[in-house]
Amino acid sequence: MSGWGMPRPVFIVSDHTGLTAENIARALLTHFPGQPLRYLRRPFTSDAQAAQAVVSEVEALAASGERPLIFTTTTQPDVLEALQTAPAQVFDLLTENLRLLEGEFAEPPQLGAGGHHDMQDSEAYLSRMEALDFALATDDGIGDKQYGLSDVILVGVSRAGKTPTSLFLALQHGIRASNYPLAEDDFEREGLPAPLEQYRSKLFGLTIDPRRLHAIRTQRKPGSKYASIEQCEYEVRRASALFARLGLPVKDTTSASVEEIAAGVLALLRQSGRLEG
Amino acid sequence: MSGWGMPRPVFIVSDHTGLTAENIARALLTHFPGQPLRYLRRPFTSDAQAAQAVVSEVEALAASGERPLIFTTTTQPDVLEALQTAPAQVFDLLTENLRLLEGEFAEPPQLGAGGHHDMQDSEAYLSRMEALDFALATDDGIGDKQYGLSDVILVGVSRAGKTPTSLFLALQHGIRASNYPLAEDDFEREGLPAPLEQYRSKLFGLTIDPRRLHAIRTQRKPGSKYASIEQCEYEVRRASALFARLGLPVKDTTSASVEEIAAGVLALLRQSGRLEG
Repeated sequence: MSGWGMPRPVFIVSDHTGLTAENIARALLTHFPGQPLRYLRRPFTSDAQAAQAVVSEVEALAASGERPLIFTTTTQPDVLEALQTAPAQVFDLLTENLRLLEGEFAEPPQLGAGGHHDMQDSEAYLSRMEALDFALATDDGIGDKQYGLSDVILVGVSRAGKTPTSLFLALQHGIRASNYPLAEDDFEREGLPAPLEQYRSKLFGLTIDPRRLHAIRTQRKPGSKYASIEQCEYEVRRASALFARLGLPVKDTTSASVEEIAAGVLALLRQSGRLEG
Repeated sequence: MSGWGMPRPVFIVSDHTGLTAENIARALLTHFPGQPLRYLRRPFTSDAQAAQAVVSEVEALAASGERPLIFTTTTQPDVLEALQTAPAQVFDLLTENLRLLEGEFAEPPQLGAGGHHDMQDSEAYLSRMEALDFALATDDGIGDKQYGLSDVILVGVSRAGKTPTSLFLALQHGIRASNYPLAEDDFEREGLPAPLEQYRSKLFGLTIDPRRLHAIRTQRKPGSKYASIEQCEYEVRRASALFARLGLPVKDTTSASVEEIAAGVLALLRQSGRLEG
Protein backbone atom coordinates (compact mmCIF):
# COMPACT_ATOMS: atom_id res chain seq x y z
CA MET A 1 0.00 0.00 0.00
CA SER A 2 2.78 2.40 -0.91
CA GLY A 3 0.18 4.75 -2.36
CA TRP A 4 -1.25 5.97 0.94
CA GLY A 5 -0.46 9.59 1.55
CA MET A 6 0.42 10.22 -2.13
CA PRO A 7 -1.84 12.67 -3.95
CA ARG A 8 -4.52 10.53 -5.53
CA PRO A 9 -4.28 10.28 -9.35
CA VAL A 10 -7.19 11.86 -11.24
CA PHE A 11 -7.26 10.88 -14.92
CA ILE A 12 -8.99 13.31 -17.28
CA VAL A 13 -9.86 11.34 -20.41
CA SER A 14 -11.44 12.99 -23.43
CA ASP A 15 -11.68 12.36 -27.15
CA HIS A 16 -11.11 16.08 -27.57
CA THR A 17 -9.19 18.75 -25.63
CA GLY A 18 -10.41 17.60 -22.22
CA LEU A 19 -11.32 21.12 -21.05
CA THR A 20 -14.94 20.23 -20.29
CA ALA A 21 -14.00 16.99 -18.54
CA GLU A 22 -11.48 18.81 -16.36
CA ASN A 23 -13.94 21.59 -15.54
CA ILE A 24 -16.52 19.08 -14.35
CA ALA A 25 -13.95 17.05 -12.41
CA ARG A 26 -12.74 20.18 -10.63
CA ALA A 27 -16.30 21.33 -9.92
CA LEU A 28 -16.89 17.96 -8.24
CA LEU A 29 -13.59 17.59 -6.44
CA THR A 30 -13.65 21.10 -5.02
CA HIS A 31 -16.29 19.77 -2.65
CA PHE A 32 -13.61 17.56 -1.07
CA PRO A 33 -11.05 20.26 -0.27
CA GLY A 34 -8.98 18.11 2.09
CA GLN A 35 -8.11 15.45 -0.49
CA PRO A 36 -4.64 15.67 -2.05
CA LEU A 37 -4.98 15.04 -5.79
CA ARG A 38 -2.84 15.05 -8.89
CA TYR A 39 -4.29 15.50 -12.36
CA LEU A 40 -3.19 13.32 -15.27
CA ARG A 41 -4.64 14.63 -18.52
CA ARG A 42 -5.14 12.32 -21.47
CA PRO A 43 -6.77 14.41 -24.22
CA PHE A 44 -7.52 13.07 -27.71
CA THR A 45 -8.16 9.56 -26.40
CA SER A 46 -10.36 8.77 -29.35
CA ASP A 47 -10.11 5.05 -30.03
CA ALA A 48 -9.95 1.76 -28.18
CA GLN A 49 -6.17 1.57 -28.54
CA ALA A 50 -5.63 4.98 -26.92
CA ALA A 51 -8.08 4.00 -24.19
CA GLN A 52 -6.15 0.78 -23.59
CA ALA A 53 -2.97 2.81 -23.10
CA VAL A 54 -4.72 4.79 -20.36
CA VAL A 55 -5.97 1.56 -18.78
CA SER A 56 -2.39 0.25 -18.68
CA GLU A 57 -1.24 3.39 -16.87
CA VAL A 58 -4.07 3.04 -14.37
CA GLU A 59 -3.20 -0.61 -13.81
CA ALA A 60 0.43 0.24 -13.11
CA LEU A 61 -0.57 2.83 -10.50
CA ALA A 62 -3.13 0.53 -8.91
CA ALA A 63 -0.51 -2.23 -8.72
CA SER A 64 1.68 0.04 -6.63
CA GLY A 65 -1.17 0.68 -4.21
CA GLU A 66 -2.63 3.90 -5.62
CA ARG A 67 -6.35 4.39 -6.14
CA PRO A 68 -6.87 6.32 -9.38
CA LEU A 69 -10.08 8.06 -10.41
CA ILE A 70 -11.10 8.42 -14.07
CA PHE A 71 -13.28 11.26 -15.34
CA THR A 72 -14.34 11.07 -18.96
CA THR A 73 -16.58 12.95 -21.37
CA THR A 74 -16.15 10.46 -24.18
CA THR A 75 -19.33 9.11 -25.74
CA GLN A 76 -17.64 6.42 -27.81
CA PRO A 77 -18.86 2.99 -26.73
CA ASP A 78 -15.52 1.25 -27.41
CA VAL A 79 -13.53 3.84 -25.44
CA LEU A 80 -15.97 3.72 -22.51
CA GLU A 81 -15.96 -0.06 -22.55
CA ALA A 82 -12.16 -0.15 -22.38
CA LEU A 83 -12.04 2.42 -19.56
CA GLN A 84 -14.55 0.42 -17.53
CA THR A 85 -12.03 -2.44 -17.36
CA ALA A 86 -9.52 -0.25 -15.47
CA PRO A 87 -9.06 -0.85 -11.73
CA ALA A 88 -10.49 2.59 -10.89
CA GLN A 89 -13.78 4.32 -10.24
CA VAL A 90 -14.90 5.67 -13.63
CA PHE A 91 -16.98 8.87 -13.74
CA ASP A 92 -18.81 8.65 -17.05
CA LEU A 93 -19.90 12.28 -17.19
CA LEU A 94 -22.19 12.35 -20.21
CA THR A 95 -23.79 8.97 -20.94
CA GLU A 96 -26.64 9.04 -18.42
CA ASN A 97 -27.65 12.58 -19.36
CA LEU A 98 -27.50 11.72 -23.07
CA ARG A 99 -29.99 8.96 -22.37
CA LEU A 100 -32.32 11.47 -20.70
CA LEU A 101 -31.95 13.85 -23.64
CA GLU A 102 -32.69 11.04 -26.08
CA GLY A 103 -36.04 10.70 -24.33
CA GLU A 104 -36.68 14.44 -24.40
CA PHE A 105 -35.87 14.86 -28.07
CA ALA A 106 -37.24 11.46 -29.13
CA GLU A 107 -34.15 10.94 -31.27
CA PRO A 108 -30.87 9.14 -30.65
CA PRO A 109 -27.71 11.18 -29.99
CA GLN A 110 -25.00 11.32 -32.63
CA LEU A 111 -22.12 9.63 -30.86
CA GLY A 112 -18.44 9.32 -31.66
CA ALA A 113 -15.39 11.55 -31.68
CA GLY A 114 -15.57 15.02 -33.08
CA GLY A 115 -19.17 15.48 -32.06
CA HIS A 116 -18.12 18.25 -29.73
CA HIS A 117 -15.87 20.29 -31.95
CA ASP A 118 -14.97 23.80 -30.91
CA MET A 119 -15.06 25.07 -34.46
CA GLN A 120 -18.22 23.25 -35.45
CA ASP A 121 -20.14 26.43 -34.94
CA SER A 122 -17.58 28.34 -36.91
CA GLU A 123 -19.49 31.60 -37.07
CA ALA A 124 -19.41 31.77 -33.28
CA TYR A 125 -15.72 30.88 -33.36
CA LEU A 126 -14.90 33.60 -35.87
CA SER A 127 -16.76 36.14 -33.78
CA ARG A 128 -14.60 35.15 -30.80
CA MET A 129 -11.42 35.67 -32.80
CA GLU A 130 -12.69 38.97 -34.19
CA ALA A 131 -13.62 40.11 -30.71
CA LEU A 132 -10.11 39.23 -29.56
CA ASP A 133 -8.52 41.29 -32.33
CA PHE A 134 -10.87 44.06 -31.36
CA ALA A 135 -9.97 43.90 -27.67
CA LEU A 136 -6.26 43.89 -28.49
CA ALA A 137 -6.64 46.85 -30.85
CA THR A 138 -8.60 48.94 -28.37
CA ASP A 139 -6.73 47.94 -25.24
CA ASP A 140 -6.25 50.81 -22.84
CA GLY A 141 -7.98 53.51 -24.76
CA ILE A 142 -5.80 53.57 -27.86
CA GLY A 143 -8.78 53.00 -30.12
CA ASP A 144 -11.27 55.76 -29.26
CA LYS A 145 -12.92 55.55 -32.65
CA GLN A 146 -13.82 51.93 -32.05
CA TYR A 147 -15.98 52.67 -29.02
CA GLY A 148 -18.94 52.88 -31.38
CA LEU A 149 -18.37 49.24 -32.38
CA SER A 150 -18.00 47.97 -28.83
CA ASP A 151 -20.55 45.85 -27.00
CA VAL A 152 -19.27 47.18 -23.71
CA ILE A 153 -16.68 49.72 -22.53
CA LEU A 154 -14.87 48.92 -19.29
CA VAL A 155 -13.96 52.03 -17.30
CA GLY A 156 -11.53 52.09 -14.40
CA VAL A 157 -8.17 53.22 -13.08
CA SER A 158 -4.97 51.59 -14.30
CA ARG A 159 -4.64 47.95 -13.12
CA ALA A 160 -8.22 47.61 -11.93
CA GLY A 161 -8.74 44.54 -14.14
CA LYS A 162 -9.92 45.98 -17.46
CA THR A 163 -7.52 44.16 -19.80
CA PRO A 164 -7.87 40.58 -18.49
CA THR A 165 -11.64 41.02 -18.40
CA SER A 166 -11.90 42.32 -21.96
CA LEU A 167 -9.66 39.53 -23.28
CA PHE A 168 -11.69 36.93 -21.41
CA LEU A 169 -14.98 38.36 -22.71
CA ALA A 170 -13.59 38.15 -26.24
CA LEU A 171 -11.98 34.70 -26.07
CA GLN A 172 -14.79 32.98 -24.20
CA HIS A 173 -17.88 34.87 -25.25
CA GLY A 174 -17.14 36.76 -28.46
CA ILE A 175 -18.01 40.05 -26.74
CA ARG A 176 -16.34 43.18 -28.12
CA ALA A 177 -15.05 44.97 -25.06
CA SER A 178 -13.07 48.21 -25.08
CA ASN A 179 -11.24 49.81 -22.20
CA TYR A 180 -11.17 53.36 -20.99
CA PRO A 181 -8.45 54.00 -18.42
CA LEU A 182 -9.37 56.81 -16.03
CA ALA A 183 -6.52 59.24 -15.46
CA GLU A 184 -5.79 62.55 -13.75
CA ASP A 185 -7.53 64.67 -16.43
CA ASP A 186 -10.73 62.73 -16.06
CA PHE A 187 -10.95 63.42 -12.35
CA GLU A 188 -10.80 67.17 -12.83
CA ARG A 189 -13.95 67.14 -14.92
CA GLU A 190 -17.51 66.91 -13.62
CA GLY A 191 -19.08 64.87 -16.40
CA LEU A 192 -17.94 61.99 -18.55
CA PRO A 193 -14.55 61.89 -20.25
CA ALA A 194 -15.15 63.38 -23.69
CA PRO A 195 -14.60 60.21 -25.79
CA LEU A 196 -17.22 58.38 -23.71
CA GLU A 197 -20.01 60.92 -23.77
CA GLN A 198 -22.07 59.37 -26.52
CA TYR A 199 -21.62 55.79 -25.28
CA ARG A 200 -22.94 56.08 -21.76
CA SER A 201 -25.21 53.03 -22.08
CA LYS A 202 -22.20 50.83 -22.86
CA LEU A 203 -20.14 51.80 -19.82
CA PHE A 204 -19.29 49.39 -17.03
CA GLY A 205 -17.20 50.56 -14.08
CA LEU A 206 -14.51 48.47 -12.40
CA THR A 207 -13.39 49.40 -8.91
CA ILE A 208 -10.86 47.84 -6.56
CA ASP A 209 -9.68 48.11 -2.97
CA PRO A 210 -6.92 50.78 -2.87
CA ARG A 211 -4.64 48.53 -0.79
CA ARG A 212 -4.93 45.76 -3.35
CA LEU A 213 -4.28 48.26 -6.15
CA HIS A 214 -1.24 49.53 -4.24
CA ALA A 215 0.10 45.95 -4.03
CA ILE A 216 -0.47 45.30 -7.75
CA ARG A 217 1.10 48.57 -8.86
CA THR A 218 4.03 48.14 -6.47
CA GLN A 219 4.89 44.87 -8.18
CA ARG A 220 4.98 46.77 -11.45
CA LYS A 221 6.66 50.03 -10.44
CA PRO A 222 8.01 49.74 -6.90
CA GLY A 223 8.33 53.02 -5.00
CA SER A 224 6.70 55.14 -7.72
CA LYS A 225 4.09 57.82 -7.08
CA TYR A 226 1.85 55.74 -9.37
CA ALA A 227 2.06 52.83 -6.91
CA SER A 228 1.82 54.84 -3.68
CA ILE A 229 -1.08 54.11 -1.37
CA GLU A 230 -2.02 57.81 -1.40
CA GLN A 231 -2.27 57.89 -5.20
CA CYS A 232 -4.22 54.63 -5.26
CA GLU A 233 -6.66 55.90 -2.64
CA TYR A 234 -7.10 59.17 -4.50
CA GLU A 235 -7.75 57.53 -7.87
CA VAL A 236 -10.16 54.91 -6.54
CA ARG A 237 -12.09 57.55 -4.57
CA ARG A 238 -12.43 59.82 -7.59
CA ALA A 239 -13.34 56.95 -9.90
CA SER A 240 -16.02 55.73 -7.49
CA ALA A 241 -17.44 59.24 -7.24
CA LEU A 242 -17.60 59.44 -11.03
CA PHE A 243 -19.35 56.05 -11.29
CA ALA A 244 -21.88 57.12 -8.65
CA ARG A 245 -22.54 60.48 -10.32
CA LEU A 246 -23.21 58.77 -13.63
CA GLY A 247 -25.15 55.88 -12.13
CA LEU A 248 -22.91 53.32 -13.85
CA PRO A 249 -23.08 49.62 -13.04
CA VAL A 250 -19.94 48.82 -11.05
CA LYS A 251 -18.09 45.64 -10.14
CA ASP A 252 -15.50 45.44 -7.38
CA THR A 253 -12.62 43.37 -8.75
CA THR A 254 -10.65 43.11 -5.49
CA SER A 255 -11.46 39.48 -4.86
CA ALA A 256 -13.28 38.62 -8.09
CA SER A 257 -11.84 36.42 -10.82
CA VAL A 258 -12.05 37.41 -14.49
CA GLU A 259 -14.77 34.76 -14.82
CA GLU A 260 -16.82 36.52 -12.16
CA ILE A 261 -16.26 40.02 -13.50
CA ALA A 262 -17.17 38.81 -16.98
CA ALA A 263 -20.32 37.15 -15.64
CA GLY A 264 -21.35 40.52 -14.20
CA VAL A 265 -20.80 42.24 -17.54
CA LEU A 266 -22.74 39.54 -19.39
CA ALA A 267 -25.65 39.76 -16.95
CA LEU A 268 -25.81 43.51 -17.59
CA LEU A 269 -25.77 43.05 -21.36
CA ARG A 270 -28.58 40.53 -21.09
CA GLN A 271 -30.68 42.69 -18.79
CA SER A 272 -30.40 45.58 -21.18
CA GLY A 273 -31.39 43.35 -24.08
CA ARG A 274 -28.09 43.75 -25.91
CA LEU A 275 -27.31 40.06 -25.62
CA GLU A 276 -29.65 37.07 -25.84
CA GLY A 277 -30.13 34.56 -23.05
CA MET B 1 -49.07 24.41 -28.28
CA SER B 2 -47.71 27.69 -29.57
CA GLY B 3 -44.22 26.54 -28.60
CA TRP B 4 -43.75 24.01 -31.40
CA GLY B 5 -41.13 25.09 -33.85
CA MET B 6 -39.66 27.67 -31.43
CA PRO B 7 -36.09 27.03 -30.32
CA ARG B 8 -36.39 25.03 -27.12
CA PRO B 9 -35.40 26.96 -23.96
CA VAL B 10 -32.30 25.65 -22.19
CA PHE B 11 -31.88 27.11 -18.70
CA ILE B 12 -28.34 27.20 -17.32
CA VAL B 13 -28.66 27.52 -13.54
CA SER B 14 -25.62 27.90 -11.32
CA ASP B 15 -24.80 29.30 -7.90
CA HIS B 16 -21.68 30.74 -9.50
CA THR B 17 -20.78 32.03 -12.98
CA GLY B 18 -22.44 29.14 -14.82
CA LEU B 19 -19.47 28.51 -17.12
CA THR B 20 -19.10 24.87 -16.10
CA ALA B 21 -22.84 24.21 -16.34
CA GLU B 22 -22.96 25.72 -19.81
CA ASN B 23 -19.91 23.78 -20.96
CA ILE B 24 -21.49 20.50 -19.90
CA ALA B 25 -24.86 21.41 -21.39
CA ARG B 26 -23.23 22.25 -24.71
CA ALA B 27 -21.11 19.08 -24.65
CA LEU B 28 -24.35 17.11 -24.25
CA LEU B 29 -26.54 19.04 -26.65
CA THR B 30 -23.97 19.04 -29.44
CA HIS B 31 -24.91 15.38 -29.87
CA PHE B 32 -28.35 16.52 -31.04
CA PRO B 33 -27.27 18.89 -33.80
CA GLY B 34 -30.71 19.15 -35.41
CA GLN B 35 -32.48 20.57 -32.36
CA PRO B 36 -33.09 24.33 -32.34
CA LEU B 37 -32.24 25.66 -28.88
CA ARG B 38 -32.00 28.95 -27.06
CA TYR B 39 -29.90 29.41 -23.94
CA LEU B 40 -31.22 31.27 -20.91
CA ARG B 41 -28.44 31.80 -18.38
CA ARG B 42 -29.25 32.28 -14.72
CA PRO B 43 -25.90 32.59 -12.91
CA PHE B 44 -25.59 33.29 -9.18
CA THR B 45 -28.81 31.43 -8.39
CA SER B 46 -27.66 30.75 -4.86
CA ASP B 47 -30.73 30.55 -2.65
CA ALA B 48 -34.26 29.16 -2.68
CA GLN B 49 -35.74 32.55 -3.57
CA ALA B 50 -33.55 32.94 -6.66
CA ALA B 51 -34.38 29.35 -7.62
CA GLN B 52 -38.09 30.09 -7.25
CA ALA B 53 -37.73 33.01 -9.67
CA VAL B 54 -36.27 30.62 -12.25
CA VAL B 55 -39.10 28.16 -11.61
CA SER B 56 -41.64 30.94 -12.28
CA GLU B 57 -39.97 31.72 -15.61
CA VAL B 58 -40.03 28.04 -16.55
CA GLU B 59 -43.70 27.80 -15.59
CA ALA B 60 -44.59 30.77 -17.77
CA LEU B 61 -42.84 29.22 -20.78
CA ALA B 62 -44.40 25.80 -20.15
CA ALA B 63 -47.83 27.42 -19.89
CA SER B 64 -47.42 28.79 -23.40
CA GLY B 65 -46.59 25.34 -24.73
CA GLU B 66 -42.79 25.38 -24.59
CA ARG B 67 -40.76 22.51 -23.16
CA PRO B 68 -37.82 23.95 -21.23
CA LEU B 69 -34.75 22.01 -20.13
CA ILE B 70 -32.82 22.92 -16.96
CA PHE B 71 -29.12 22.19 -16.52
CA THR B 72 -27.65 22.93 -13.11
CA THR B 73 -24.37 22.49 -11.26
CA THR B 74 -25.75 23.67 -7.95
CA THR B 75 -25.18 21.39 -4.98
CA GLN B 76 -27.44 23.28 -2.60
CA PRO B 77 -30.30 21.04 -1.47
CA ASP B 78 -32.84 23.89 -1.21
CA VAL B 79 -32.02 25.20 -4.70
CA LEU B 80 -32.18 21.71 -6.22
CA GLU B 81 -35.44 20.98 -4.44
CA ALA B 82 -37.02 24.16 -5.81
CA LEU B 83 -35.80 23.47 -9.35
CA GLN B 84 -37.24 19.96 -9.24
CA THR B 85 -40.73 21.48 -8.89
CA ALA B 86 -40.43 23.21 -12.28
CA PRO B 87 -42.36 21.74 -15.23
CA ALA B 88 -39.15 20.80 -17.04
CA GLN B 89 -36.62 18.01 -17.29
CA VAL B 90 -33.89 18.89 -14.77
CA PHE B 91 -30.32 17.78 -15.48
CA ASP B 92 -28.69 17.70 -12.05
CA LEU B 93 -25.11 17.55 -13.27
CA LEU B 94 -23.15 16.99 -10.06
CA THR B 95 -25.22 15.27 -7.35
CA GLU B 96 -24.93 11.67 -8.51
CA ASN B 97 -21.17 11.94 -9.03
CA LEU B 98 -20.73 13.62 -5.65
CA ARG B 99 -22.40 10.60 -4.11
CA LEU B 100 -19.91 8.32 -5.87
CA LEU B 101 -17.02 10.47 -4.68
CA GLU B 102 -18.34 10.41 -1.13
CA GLY B 103 -17.94 6.65 -1.28
CA GLU B 104 -14.44 6.87 -2.76
CA PHE B 105 -13.16 9.37 -0.21
CA ALA B 106 -15.21 8.00 2.69
CA GLU B 107 -16.13 11.54 3.66
CA PRO B 108 -19.15 13.73 2.88
CA PRO B 109 -18.80 16.55 0.34
CA GLN B 110 -18.84 20.14 1.54
CA LEU B 111 -21.99 21.45 -0.10
CA GLY B 112 -23.36 24.94 -0.52
CA ALA B 113 -22.61 28.02 -2.57
CA GLY B 114 -19.09 29.25 -3.01
CA GLY B 115 -17.62 25.78 -2.86
CA HIS B 116 -16.43 26.14 -6.42
CA HIS B 117 -14.79 29.52 -6.34
CA ASP B 118 -12.47 30.52 -9.15
CA MET B 119 -10.14 32.35 -6.82
CA GLN B 120 -10.17 29.73 -4.10
CA ASP B 121 -6.87 28.47 -5.35
CA SER B 122 -5.53 31.97 -5.49
CA GLU B 123 -1.95 31.01 -6.24
CA ALA B 124 -3.11 29.34 -9.45
CA TYR B 125 -5.24 32.38 -10.21
CA LEU B 126 -2.36 34.79 -9.71
CA SER B 127 -0.17 32.69 -11.98
CA ARG B 128 -2.83 32.96 -14.69
CA MET B 129 -2.90 36.75 -14.39
CA GLU B 130 0.89 36.93 -14.35
CA ALA B 131 1.04 34.72 -17.41
CA LEU B 132 -1.43 37.03 -19.14
CA ASP B 133 0.69 40.10 -18.38
CA PHE B 134 3.65 38.15 -19.67
CA ALA B 135 1.92 37.16 -22.91
CA LEU B 136 0.79 40.74 -23.51
CA ALA B 137 4.29 42.08 -22.83
CA THR B 138 6.00 39.63 -25.16
CA ASP B 139 3.36 39.58 -27.88
CA ASP B 140 4.85 39.44 -31.35
CA GLY B 141 8.47 39.34 -30.47
CA ILE B 142 8.79 42.67 -28.71
CA GLY B 143 10.19 41.04 -25.60
CA ASP B 144 13.22 39.02 -26.74
CA LYS B 145 14.78 39.14 -23.31
CA GLN B 146 11.78 37.40 -21.80
CA TYR B 147 12.20 34.26 -23.89
CA GLY B 148 14.28 32.85 -21.06
CA LEU B 149 11.29 33.13 -18.73
CA SER B 150 8.84 31.55 -21.16
CA ASP B 151 7.33 28.10 -20.78
CA VAL B 152 6.89 27.91 -24.54
CA ILE B 153 7.70 30.07 -27.56
CA LEU B 154 5.24 29.97 -30.45
CA VAL B 155 6.90 30.42 -33.83
CA GLY B 156 5.06 31.17 -37.05
CA VAL B 157 4.33 33.67 -39.80
CA SER B 158 2.15 36.69 -39.12
CA ARG B 159 -1.52 35.75 -38.49
CA ALA B 160 -0.87 32.03 -38.09
CA GLY B 161 -2.58 32.04 -34.68
CA LYS B 162 0.23 32.83 -32.23
CA THR B 163 -1.44 35.64 -30.29
CA PRO B 164 -4.84 34.06 -29.55
CA THR B 165 -3.08 30.84 -28.56
CA SER B 166 -0.66 32.53 -26.17
CA LEU B 167 -3.45 34.54 -24.55
CA PHE B 168 -5.56 31.43 -24.17
CA LEU B 169 -2.67 29.47 -22.67
CA ALA B 170 -2.17 32.27 -20.16
CA LEU B 171 -5.80 32.93 -19.22
CA GLN B 172 -6.87 29.31 -18.99
CA HIS B 173 -3.73 27.50 -17.97
CA GLY B 174 -1.28 30.00 -16.49
CA ILE B 175 1.29 29.06 -19.14
CA ARG B 176 3.84 31.74 -20.04
CA ALA B 177 3.86 31.77 -23.81
CA SER B 178 5.92 34.10 -25.99
CA ASN B 179 5.64 34.63 -29.71
CA TYR B 180 8.27 34.79 -32.38
CA PRO B 181 6.92 36.07 -35.71
CA LEU B 182 8.88 34.68 -38.66
CA ALA B 183 9.72 37.34 -41.23
CA GLU B 184 11.72 37.79 -44.43
CA ASP B 185 15.11 37.95 -42.65
CA ASP B 186 14.50 34.64 -40.95
CA PHE B 187 13.92 32.84 -44.23
CA GLU B 188 17.27 33.90 -45.64
CA ARG B 189 19.11 32.16 -42.85
CA GLU B 190 19.82 28.44 -42.61
CA GLY B 191 19.57 27.98 -38.85
CA LEU B 192 17.40 29.44 -36.14
CA PRO B 193 16.64 33.15 -35.87
CA ALA B 194 19.33 34.52 -33.55
CA PRO B 195 17.11 35.37 -30.54
CA LEU B 196 15.78 31.80 -30.48
CA GLU B 197 19.04 29.89 -30.68
CA GLN B 198 19.41 29.10 -27.01
CA TYR B 199 15.73 28.23 -26.49
CA ARG B 200 15.27 25.51 -29.05
CA SER B 201 13.60 23.13 -26.59
CA LYS B 202 10.84 25.67 -25.95
CA LEU B 203 9.87 26.21 -29.58
CA PHE B 204 6.52 25.19 -31.01
CA GLY B 205 5.75 25.83 -34.67
CA LEU B 206 2.38 26.98 -35.98
CA THR B 207 1.57 26.49 -39.64
CA ILE B 208 -1.52 27.28 -41.69
CA ASP B 209 -2.95 26.67 -45.14
CA PRO B 210 -1.71 29.52 -47.40
CA ARG B 211 -5.21 30.09 -48.82
CA ARG B 212 -6.63 30.51 -45.34
CA LEU B 213 -3.76 32.85 -44.45
CA HIS B 214 -4.45 34.83 -47.62
CA ALA B 215 -8.11 35.21 -46.57
CA ILE B 216 -7.19 36.33 -43.04
CA ARG B 217 -4.58 38.82 -44.20
CA THR B 218 -6.86 40.15 -46.94
CA GLN B 219 -9.42 41.08 -44.31
CA ARG B 220 -6.70 43.04 -42.55
CA LYS B 221 -4.86 44.63 -45.48
CA PRO B 222 -6.83 44.09 -48.69
CA GLY B 223 -4.76 44.11 -51.89
CA SER B 224 -1.39 44.35 -50.12
CA LYS B 225 1.67 42.31 -51.01
CA TYR B 226 1.48 41.06 -47.40
CA ALA B 227 -1.93 39.54 -48.11
CA SER B 228 -1.21 38.20 -51.61
CA ILE B 229 -1.54 34.48 -52.16
CA GLU B 230 2.02 34.39 -53.56
CA GLN B 231 3.47 35.96 -50.42
CA CYS B 232 1.40 33.69 -48.17
CA GLU B 233 2.51 30.59 -50.08
CA TYR B 234 6.14 31.71 -49.96
CA GLU B 235 6.12 32.41 -46.21
CA VAL B 236 4.31 29.22 -45.25
CA ARG B 237 6.63 27.13 -47.44
CA ARG B 238 9.75 28.66 -45.94
CA ALA B 239 8.40 28.41 -42.40
CA SER B 240 7.52 24.75 -42.89
CA ALA B 241 11.00 24.08 -44.26
CA LEU B 242 12.52 25.74 -41.20
CA PHE B 243 10.34 23.71 -38.81
CA ALA B 244 11.30 20.49 -40.61
CA ARG B 245 15.02 21.34 -40.60
CA LEU B 246 14.92 21.98 -36.85
CA GLY B 247 12.64 19.05 -36.08
CA LEU B 248 10.18 21.31 -34.23
CA PRO B 249 6.78 20.09 -33.08
CA VAL B 250 4.24 21.72 -35.40
CA LYS B 251 0.49 22.29 -35.27
CA ASP B 252 -1.58 23.20 -38.32
CA THR B 253 -3.98 25.93 -37.21
CA THR B 254 -6.05 26.07 -40.40
CA SER B 255 -9.08 24.37 -38.93
CA ALA B 256 -8.04 24.15 -35.29
CA SER B 257 -9.55 26.24 -32.52
CA VAL B 258 -7.37 27.97 -29.92
CA GLU B 259 -8.53 25.28 -27.48
CA GLU B 260 -7.14 22.60 -29.78
CA ILE B 261 -3.88 24.38 -30.52
CA ALA B 262 -3.40 25.00 -26.80
CA ALA B 263 -4.09 21.34 -26.04
CA GLY B 264 -1.30 20.41 -28.46
CA VAL B 265 1.12 22.77 -26.74
CA LEU B 266 0.14 21.45 -23.30
CA ALA B 267 0.60 17.85 -24.41
CA LEU B 268 4.10 18.72 -25.60
CA LEU B 269 4.98 20.43 -22.32
CA ARG B 270 3.77 17.40 -20.39
CA GLN B 271 5.62 14.92 -22.58
CA SER B 272 8.83 16.83 -22.08
CA GLY B 273 8.27 16.91 -18.33
CA ARG B 274 8.03 20.70 -18.15
CA LEU B 275 4.45 20.53 -16.92
CA GLU B 276 2.84 18.06 -14.53
CA GLY B 277 -0.12 15.88 -15.45
